[in-house]
Amino acid sequence: MKMILAIIRIDKMNATKKALSEAGITSMTATGKVFGRGKGLWDAKVLEGAKNDQPEALELLGKEPRLRPQRVLNIAVSDENVQTTIDTIIEVNQTPSPGDGKIFVMPLGEAVRVRTGETGTTIL
Amino acid sequence: MKMILAIIRIDKMNATKKALSEAGITSMTATGKVFGRGKGLWDAKVLEGAKNDQPEALELLGKEPRLRPQRVLNIAVSDENVQTTIDTIIEVNQTPSPGDGKIFVMPLGEAVRVRTGETGTTIL
Amino acid sequence: MKMILAIIRIDKMNATKKALSEAGITSMTATGKVFGRGKGLWDAKVLEGAKNDQPEALELLGKEPRLRPQRVLNIAVSDENVQTTIDTIIEVNQTPSPGDGKIFVMPLGEAVRVRTGETGTTIL
Repeated sequence: MKMILAIIRIDKMNATKKALSEAGITSMTATGKVFGRGKGLWDAKVLEGAKNDQPEALELLGKEPRLRPQRVLNIAVSDENVQTTIDTIIEVNQTPSPGDGKIFVMPLGEAVRVRTGETGTTIL
Repeated sequence: MKMILAIIRIDKMNATKKALSEAGITSMTATGKVFGRGKGLWDAKVLEGAKNDQPEALELLGKEPRLRPQRVLNIAVSDENVQTTIDTIIEVNQTPSPGDGKIFVMPLGEAVRVRTGETGTTIL
Repeated sequence: MKMILAIIRIDKMNATKKALSEAGITSMTATGKVFGRGKGLWDAKVLEGAKNDQPEALELLGKEPRLRPQRVLNIAVSDENVQTTIDTIIEVNQTPSPGDGKIFVMPLGEAVRVRTGETGTTIL
């Protein structure tokens, strides 16, 4: 089993959840708004100012700010569903602009359904 | 060591933390409100509407909405405490209704206490 | 690759991100405010009361409450950057008082950039 963390654009969250559900991937949890960034030079104070809508900071950042509000989707999947999950997320989230997000795949040793105590891929 | 993610009902959070603490499990972090779901058919727009308390969406979802506000508890434990942690969470959170949540167990390679630089299970 | 979870003081977040960036660690995501705690005896109701600023609870907790609002930073790094990341976080966050936080290092199997489909350490 794997735990997949998808860090994606906020406005793609619903479409992503819908597409995953249609692809048979159903065990997911969406966490709140996060602030992510990719590679690139930046200054923490400018970014903090931009987050607080300070005009000077926003001007310094120019037309393409590097700080991006995003959302994290935690998706627990069986090994055989990892590629489908990645492909589905890419299909829904790919745009020509930086900031589409990243997908991280981590090992998942066990999964337990609290109500029944069931374990393993059947609960995903 | 293992990192345990417990996705549980909001109103069970305090009782869960208390029970874990009494069982000797002390290194935990509670993140904010999340929206989780288990298996089942659903429609993203209806769920979004329900989240925003739109009457039409709530009506469509009927008596048993599948979107559930939940909380995530991150618990870092030694290997020998994994089963105690799972058992304690199940004991506190088990009800007869769907939505009790899930527990995920992930490998944890290292744990470091920032203040002292100590590593390993002694900091958990 | 590794996924590093750093649970740190809220007021150290910007300095931490800046120091990591200067050390060449660039792929990070900051999640919202969380409530963490380390070892020590506590009572869930007292902590809940303290969180809600109830005077009785705050008095019971005394001068050094054990519940601490913190932030989580998710940092995806190559294996060779793990120690630099840990050292940098410790350097910025170490104080003489408890509550500096913890660092957890988890295995990371794959990393994918959504926009290009690139994988591996080059996207970190």
